[in-house]
Parts: sequence; structure tokens; C-alpha cells
Amino acid sequence: MERNIYLDLLTIPQALARVTAALDRDGLIQQETIPSHEAGGRVLAQAVYARTSSPTFHSAAMDGIAVKAASTFGAREGRPLLLVRDRDYIPVNTGNPLPDGMDAVIMIEEVLEETDKGVTIEKGAFPMQHVRRIGEDIVATELLLPQNHTLSPYDIGALLSAGIWEVSVWEPVRITIIPTGDEVLDFTTRPVPKAGQVIESNSQVFLNIAKAWNCTAQRIPPVPDDPLSLKKALAKALEEGAHVVILGAGSSAGTKDYTKAVINELGEVLVHGIAVMPGKPSILGVVEGRLVVGAPGYPVSAVVCIEELLGTIVAWLSRTRIWERPEITVEMARTVPSKLGLEERIRLAIGKVGTKNVAIPLTGGAGMITSLTKAHGMTSIPATNEGVEQGTRVQASLLVPEKELQQTLLVIGSHDNTIDLLANGLMGLEAPIYLASSHVGSMGGLMALQSGSTMIAGAHLFDPETEDYNYPFIRTYLPDMDLVVVNLAIRHQGLIVAHGNPLGIEGLEDLATKRARFVNRQRGAGTRILFDHALQQKGLKPSDIQGYGCEEFTHMALAANVLTGVADCGLGIFAAARALNLDFIPLARERYDLLIPKVYVEEPKIQTLLALIRQETTQEQIKALGGYETTLTGHIMEPGQGLG
Amino acid sequence: MERNIYLDLLTIPQALARVTAALDRDGLIQQETIPSHEAGGRVLAQAVYARTSSPTFHSAAMDGIAVKAASTFGAREGRPLLLVRDRDYIPVNTGNPLPDGMDAVIMIEEVLEETDKGVTIEKGAFPMQHVRRIGEDIVATELLLPQNHTLSPYDIGALLSAGIWEVSVWEPVRITIIPTGDEVLDFTTRPVPKAGQVIESNSQVFLNIAKAWNCTAQRIPPVPDDPLSLKKALAKALEEGAHVVILGAGSSAGTKDYTKAVINELGEVLVHGIAVMPGKPSILGVVEGRLVVGAPGYPVSAVVCIEELLGTIVAWLSRTRIWERPEITVEMARTVPSKLGLEERIRLAIGKVGTKNVAIPLTGGAGMITSLTKAHGMTSIPATNEGVEQGTRVQASLLVPEKELQQTLLVIGSHDNTIDLLANGLMGLEAPIYLASSHVGSMGGLMALQSGSTMIAGAHLFDPETEDYNYPFIRTYLPDMDLVVVNLAIRHQGLIVAHGNPLGIEGLEDLATKRARFVNRQRGAGTRILFDHALQQKGLKPSDIQGYGCEEFTHMALAANVLTGVADCGLGIFAAARALNLDFIPLARERYDLLIPKVYVEEPKIQTLLALIRQETTQEQIKALGGYETTLTGHIMEPGQGLG
Repeated sequence: MERNIYLDLLTIPQALARVTAALDRDGLIQQETIPSHEAGGRVLAQAVYARTSSPTFHSAAMDGIAVKAASTFGAREGRPLLLVRDRDYIPVNTGNPLPDGMDAVIMIEEVLEETDKGVTIEKGAFPMQHVRRIGEDIVATELLLPQNHTLSPYDIGALLSAGIWEVSVWEPVRITIIPTGDEVLDFTTRPVPKAGQVIESNSQVFLNIAKAWNCTAQRIPPVPDDPLSLKKALAKALEEGAHVVILGAGSSAGTKDYTKAVINELGEVLVHGIAVMPGKPSILGVVEGRLVVGAPGYPVSAVVCIEELLGTIVAWLSRTRIWERPEITVEMARTVPSKLGLEERIRLAIGKVGTKNVAIPLTGGAGMITSLTKAHGMTSIPATNEGVEQGTRVQASLLVPEKELQQTLLVIGSHDNTIDLLANGLMGLEAPIYLASSHVGSMGGLMALQSGSTMIAGAHLFDPETEDYNYPFIRTYLPDMDLVVVNLAIRHQGLIVAHGNPLGIEGLEDLATKRARFVNRQRGAGTRILFDHALQQKGLKPSDIQGYGCEEFTHMALAANVLTGVADCGLGIFAAARALNLDFIPLARERYDLLIPKVYVEEPKIQTLLALIRQETTQEQIKALGGYETTLTGHIMEPGQGLG
Repeated sequence: MERNIYLDLLTIPQALARVTAALDRDGLIQQETIPSHEAGGRVLAQAVYARTSSPTFHSAAMDGIAVKAASTFGAREGRPLLLVRDRDYIPVNTGNPLPDGMDAVIMIEEVLEETDKGVTIEKGAFPMQHVRRIGEDIVATELLLPQNHTLSPYDIGALLSAGIWEVSVWEPVRITIIPTGDEVLDFTTRPVPKAGQVIESNSQVFLNIAKAWNCTAQRIPPVPDDPLSLKKALAKALEEGAHVVILGAGSSAGTKDYTKAVINELGEVLVHGIAVMPGKPSILGVVEGRLVVGAPGYPVSAVVCIEELLGTIVAWLSRTRIWERPEITVEMARTVPSKLGLEERIRLAIGKVGTKNVAIPLTGGAGMITSLTKAHGMTSIPATNEGVEQGTRVQASLLVPEKELQQTLLVIGSHDNTIDLLANGLMGLEAPIYLASSHVGSMGGLMALQSGSTMIAGAHLFDPETEDYNYPFIRTYLPDMDLVVVNLAIRHQGLIVAHGNPLGIEGLEDLATKRARFVNRQRGAGTRILFDHALQQKGLKPSDIQGYGCEEFTHMALAANVLTGVADCGLGIFAAARALNLDFIPLARERYDLLIPKVYVEEPKIQTLLALIRQETTQEQIKALGGYETTLTGHIMEPGQGLG
């Protein structure tokens, strides 16, 4: 097996230093002259000096009358002074030039009476009162804006006011994105992926990021994994004037990763591998004075490579501000381990719990684009740390506006499709609420309540002894917590099997006798407890079940295993089976409740959620999912109530 | 004089409530279906459910070998286990489907030896090790993104991965901007304004703001101040499908302000006047179900109207997040008075002084666009307050990235063109520094040092008694402060007169005898002290000088008065005269110094500034301005040194 070897892993600053030292910025990025009014967001290549003053004349700053200040000094409250039109005053509107001989303006609200002779005032004016002076805003020849300044909307107004019709700006950085790989499917063909194939989507993530940087970016169709095709595509992109070429995927150490070889053939690889996870297999090289980026294939690695490496280089090339995200302090809801020697980027869901910002680390590897779409922020674990402990306060950079966190409600615990239904409903409100759910199972939800990491937990914990739900567990694990338990739905759990039930499974016994390949839920999940209880009732042992140790974290992921034939059977809810057109053998009904500490019940977001749950339309939607009953939905549950 | 009367002034929330109650959002903004990869930044009109799972198969998460976990359990460190190719393992690259019968992956770094027979390992694999499970990222039919969600670059990747090729989004808000006014000049004609005329530029500020909001915005050429033309332009914009029409200027109470009448004729004015300064004369109305905004003419008023009123309404129409600026806490460097009953928006220059953020209120009225271009932030004084005291800590919303403040150096004090030259030079550095200067005169600079509001003050205070500069004033006003005084330049002060010196002014005596109209600098300015001293030496009194009370705040503004004939003469620096092609009669040489508290001298930004000053090229540039000598430039001054 011939494979690439990583060069020494570099820190991000080390990697950036190599690249900026190797690129000739002045030679690469040229100046261009464009109309000022089209220059918003662009970066000035040269300082701008005002051509015209603004205003170009003394002018009235108010609607009213222009006067000679000295002729108004006699006016007092109760001793009105008559001013004669054209002699003592001239009516003016805001912006009119100050008439010759006049040196002040009295605003119309202070002009008391109007007669044929003129007007009266009861208050004198001081010289230059309500007068906009010549050059007050802008003086011709003065420095208006310095070089390398990024033009704001306001700057465009100032440029035009100063008579500057054109400006010299740095040309935008031109980026060409080349997706690569035999296994990738061009999304423009609207493909249906088979095993071993993936839909190419990273290029569109890069394009959208590059647009936000004011770059000119284009993407060409995917290029297969062979060095010649790659070389041709890269050479063509450079020939067509790209300042930066991104080769998508192919940057790691697999046998088919040719990016490094191709760059080295046409130019030089400067960086292969950074000491950051995700993002480690990033490549940076220079070919014909242009930057070539080998982006990792996994979407999260790719985003780290593009944002943290390329982003900083593009900012430097553009001579603009670093695209920096605002930071806030958050409290970690869970311990996250991390590898010594590598900086780690952790995606976080963040929500307010009381007054503090709680961050839930989003599980899943670098391959999960949804760990980015669900993230509100990102934190970094230094290379010298072995992780970050639950309860630690860390800095997180925000991926969403901070204001959105105020409108975000975290729900931690068991997963249920009705939670997604509520999430969508909350976004339809006049003042939308972002519901972020973290799927850690029912017991995980209880633990989150205990550590103060959430204001709501979803749970469906069945206690075989009392035949009650959730309360027995609350008594055991959260004895000191005053909780309100609100039912969301009664739901049906059962065996999910392939369409048509080819193995003819009718109950748990068949799992053992027919050696069906089972897929289980993770430890702590309510469904797992239910399953273990059912096994026990039937006198079965975990070892009787093939695949008992095979775990999934959500009903839908479990059902997907059955759909694709990876497993024959799993225990889950009806909604998941129906969504994937699978068969369902009902085994039990159970209560899915929301657990809310009493101190948070009056919180507006919680009140909004409860109101939504209690709406009839919401309950109709829950029933329409199938496998749910809403007889208790929205009701506050009492201990010992069970299903009734 | 027939004028409009303001309706009752409303607070911004009151104004917004009226408008949102009157508009039928669902009728106004339609859904449209567009390709997913072009939907970045758009807002989903409907929830998106995944069509395809991702991955669609169990796949290798690492480059390496796929194995049966059970067959690897025997491996231990020091007791290598031989695996036979195709029987015990199959080589895989990241992303390959897990071969049939295999249930784990061992990464290539842990594969020890490769022979003809196979490979050896010293560590077993656990089931599903380094396997990306089916549906790990996305499960088909699951809610991928809720309605009214704004699509991030990452979301585009998730949409394509989930096989979603098109999405239903809300159409962008279409805005037509109609500048109005007989006095405004169309900037596209590149006009030279005469007295009474202004270059229309607000429309381009609005356009650039609207673009940042993802609106579709267009501007038509200015429409003259007559009701019929206005009515026709408005009707045409509505006919062409605008959701929002902005009528620029014409919204206040002047005799030529027809906006209100025109809206009322075609529809209904809902808001005329808000209790906010600047921004008071804002108009909001509804015509044919569409929003019509009457924006004030002054740029700062207009920006408040557009950002705070229209911005919130557009966010509501777009069903997107409110465009909120991050906030920080700043300490006010000066007291700002404010009118009871009106909320006031204060533009702020903000810089770090030691560890605190100091905010300098930017002087100038609503007519000054440069008070926005120079601002880093904005604070609000509530209607119930009569102002905000120096030293108070207030919240400011940021107009620039917070990171930029770290790179911003405040210079407070006397104005000099060499400061602008330094500002431009600092922006040309590899790591640019933003120099923000506040022109409050030399004494103002000393006071800013005293209150800890700046790390640098520019001063040229002459003490007639000792014939020394700055030190005598430091001894008097800052006796306890340990300062470093660095000379920036020796500059020439003199009388600035019209080109050709038509009044034949040769010295100060001529000002009195020829009754020349003088324009003075403000109290506290070094130039004013110099002038008073010179008058005294000649035995002249302020009352001998016509226009002694007429003050300007900068050399350039003063010179502009002479250029346009508003004044015959003023005292100022040579550079200002030369820049405007005016004549200059030298009266004195003086030292312009930078005063820096010793505690800040080692601060990196200060060190960078001093290094720049000491560069030969900088000194060449200073000399090229004319009227400067650089014999002392960059030198540390001692008490009693005078000009030598």
C-alpha cells in the first residue's frame, strides 16, 4: 500500500506564516478603478482625498427664517420683536444657502406670529445659530478615507458627497473550486447515491463562504481521481486567472489522494497537515505564484481548513479585516475528551439556562455536516489539554448572532419526532424560537437537569415495578428538584422490520429463534429500558439477541439500519417505521413527557412552548405522524398516573 | 407659510407596531422555489425534510483496513496478530463502503507490517470502530431545517447531502429608492455643486444597506419637488412591484416637503415623526398594501430611519433574524447633553486605552455623514435623560468588528494634516492600525490625557513667557503625569487669505485697519492662543478684529471659509492654505508634539506609530506637504527646548 506521509504537523500560525512568506501579494492582487457607488464592501487600494467640500456653502440647518443675529438681540419672552420680511429675515428651508447678509437661522417652531408686515419672535439668535457651515462635513483636499479601508455603506455616501466618482480598489480574490474523487456525484445531475457514492456538496459550502468574503468564486464539475485529470484541471484554473485554487478532498493519506503529488509536480507543497482536529489533512501549496489549497473531504475538516487557513490568507490578500466571529463565555454541559498534541474544534449548541449560556458539545465526527448546521458556536481545546470538563467556562466563537441565543431553547434528552414538529412550529411564530435538541437519551436528560444544563428534558422512562413513567426516576436521581412534568404524547413502541416483514417476526421470541440481526438503542435510552424489561418478561437474555451490542442514538437512525438491510429488526417508535415505509409490530404504549424545573416554568420561551403544545392544530399534527395518542398531551402529570 | 405639522412623535416600537399591524405580510411576500445551491442567505418558506440519508451506507471513517472485530481480539502489544488479506481484512480508504462481512476499520497508522501474506496488528478493533454508520449525519424523511430558517453556507452542504435540489424560500424584499428635491444633483452626472445644491448620495447609502439585508434594491434618478412628479414616481414604483418605496428627503416640515401629502393622497400616513434624534422627521405609510418610507434628508437622520425603522420591518417581512449589532461597554470621554423627551443616538469613536474601551462622542449634527464614517459605534441616550456624563459607562452597538477596536489608536487634541498622513501610513502596514483622531484643540487633548481618555494627545501650546511649547501647560494642568513628548513637526502658522491676496494683507495690523472679515479658531486651540499672543504683542484687542467670535474647529474648515469668500482671512497652517490654493502670510513657527503618558509608551500600537514617524519616507512626506520642518521630528523633547 503506497501512501502519502504527512509532513510535520504545523500549528495554524506556522502554516499561515509559510504561505504568506511564499506569496507575492503585490504581484498577485492588482488594483482596479470602479465607480464609487458600486464599491460597497471593497477595499481601497489608495487613499481618497475629498474633491468637493460638503456643504459647499453656509446653509440653513433648520426650516425657518434666516436673520442677522445682531438685529434679533432685543427679543425677550413676553416682549416680542417684529421682524420685517426681506429686511430683517428671509424664509428658508433646511439646506437653503444662507442669504447674503444673514448669519443665523431661527427655526419655524420659534417664529410666533405672521402678519402682512412680517413675523414676531420672543428669543434672539446667536451668530451662526442653526447654520451648517461650509466644509462642516467634508473639506476639499482633506483625507477622506485611508488606503486599505473597507468601504461601508456610509463611506459610499461620503465619497459621493466629496465628489469622488471613482475609486481605486483591490481586485477581488478569484477562487476556483475543483471537487475531486471517483466516488463523488455531481449534485447538478440530481443523482441518487449508491453504496460507496456520495453527493458532492462541499464545493457549495466553500462557494457560499467565499461569497461572504467578497471573493469571486466558481466551481467546476468533479474531476476523477487520477493525477493527469487533476493536473489538467489545476493548470486550466490557473491559466484562467484564479488567485486561489481549492482541490476538494484527496488531501489525506489514502492511496487515491493525489493532491500533494500534483501540487509538487507543478509547484511546491508548503503545508501538509495541521495540528488541528478536524482539519488535520489540509494542504497548502504554491503553484505559479498562486495559492493551491488541498481541502479535506470531510465537511467539518474542510470548513476548518477553508475558514481558518484560507480565510486568513484571503483576508491578508484582500487587505481587509480578519473575518472574526464574536466570542462569548459558555459553560460546558458535558465533558469532552481531546487528544494531546492536537488543537480540537468542538461544535456547540448554545442556549440560555437562566442567565448563563450553556454549551452542549455536538457529538459526531468530522463527517457530519449537521454538526455545523446545528451549531451555534465553536470552542477550541488547546493541544496541551486532554479535554474540557463539564461545568468549565470556556470561550466560544459564535456562528449565529448573539441575539439568536436569547431566542434559543435547549431540549436535552430522549429523541422524538414530535420534538422536530415543535421545533418547526416554534419557527412559525411571530417571534420565532429556535429549538435546539440534543439526543442523549432519557437518563441523559435527567443528568442534564441535575447539572443545570437545560430548562427542559424529554423522557419516557418506564419503571416496571410501579408501572409509572419518569416520576420513579426523578425520585431516585433528582430527589431535591421541584419539577413540572408535562406530557407531550403517548407513543407506540414496537419492532421495526423490513417492508413486508420478510422474516415473519411477530414478537420478541422470534428475535432469538429466527436469529434476526437486531440493532439496539444506546444505554440510558428509555427505549433500551423498555426493551430490557420486555426481554426479561419473556425470559430472554441479551446474549440471545444477535446485535444487542449494536447501538444507535435515534429512532430514525435505527430505522435506517433496517431500511438498508444492515439489520433485520430494531425496537423503536411507529413514526420512524412509517417515515421509512417499514413494517411495525406494536409492543407497548408509553408516555413521552417534558420535565421542567418549576423555577423555569414561567420563562417566556417555556410558556410559548407549552402554549404551542396545547394548541389543537399541534395535536392534530402529532396524531397525523401516526403511532401517537394525544389524550394527555399538554397535561401536567402527577406521580402514579401511568398512562391514564 | 404653509407647513406640515408633525403627528404625535412615536417611539420606535410604537411606530413599528403601527406598521406591522397595517401590512399583510403573507399577502405581500410570496414564496418562490429556487435551486438549493443558490439559496445561501435566503429564508426557508417551508420546512425541509431529508430525501436521502447521509451516509447511505456504513463506510470507513479512516484510511486503513476493514476487519471483523471478533477476529482481531487476540492482538496485544508485543504479541502481533497476522491478518490474511481478503480473508481477515480488505484495504479501505476513507469513505469506502464497509465490505460485506466486515464490521470495523483499523487505521493505517496502526497497521504494523505488510508482507505477502498480509498485515500484522498489535491492537484489536471493537465492533463499528472507525465506521461511519448509515444515516449518522442525515436520516431520510427527518426534519433537516425548519421553516423560516436562514440558510448558512453549511446548510447548503446539508441540503445537497440530503438530496434536496430545490427549496421554497421567501422572495427577497424589493425596494425602490426615489431621491427627491429640486436642489439635489444626480451623482451619475458627476456634477459640480453650486451654492444651494447638494450631491444626492443617500440613495447609495440605502442601496448598500439594503444589499446587506439581502433585499433587491434599485434607485431611480432624483424627482423634483412637486407633488405630481412625486405621485407619478411612487405609483410607477408600486406598479413595477416594489414591496417598499423609499422617498428620499422631503419628510420634514419645510414648505416643499410633499412626501406626507403624496402618501396621504394615494394611501395613508401611519407615522410622521419619531421621538428619536437624529431621525425625527421619519414618515411611514402604506399605499396599496405596500410600505412607503419618507426618509429624512440629513444623512445621519436618514440612516437612523432606514436602519432602525425600515430594517426592523424588512427583517419582519423577510422572516429573518433581526440585524443586530454586537454591543460592548464603553466609557464616555466627554459629557454629552441631550434633549429631554427625545431618545438621542450618539456616534462614537472607540479605542482601547489600557484595558478599557473609551468612547469619544463625535461632534456634529445629523448632516454629517463623516460622523458615521468615523464612528466605531453608537450609543443611545434615553428620552428620560438630559445627557450622559463624562466617565459614565454605557452600552454601545458596534459598527465595526470588535477586533478592529484592538487595532484602533485614538489621538485626541489639536488637528494637523500630518495626523492624516500618519493615519494613511498606518493603514499601509502589514498589520494595519486604524488611527482615529478627534479634533478638540490642544487643551482638549490635555484634558483627555488627564481623564485617561487617550493614550496620545496632539498639542502645539505656546507659552509666551518661557517661549517653550507644551511643557509649561503640562506642568500647570497635568503636574502629576509622567509624559513623553515626541515632536511630530515644526510647522508654520500664518494668515490665510484669498488667492492673490486681494485686500493686500501683510500682517495683523491690516486686519484691523482694513476691516478684513476674520475667521477664528475655537477657544483652547493652540492656534487661538498664538493669535491672542500675537494680537497682544501688536497692542490689538479682540474687538478690533471683525469676526473674532466666528470659530472653526480645523485648519481646513477655516481655510474653506476663505476660499469661498465667507471670510477674508484666518490664522492657520501653510498646508491648509496650499491645499486650497490660497495665499499664506507666515507669522510664526511652532512645535507640534505628541504627548504620551510614559505607561503607554511601550504599547505595541504606540511603538508602531513612533517607528513610522521616525521613518525617513514619512518625514519626506511631511515636508512635501509644505510649511513643515522635520529637524525635530521623532525626537523626544525636553522642557525649555523651544524650537531648537
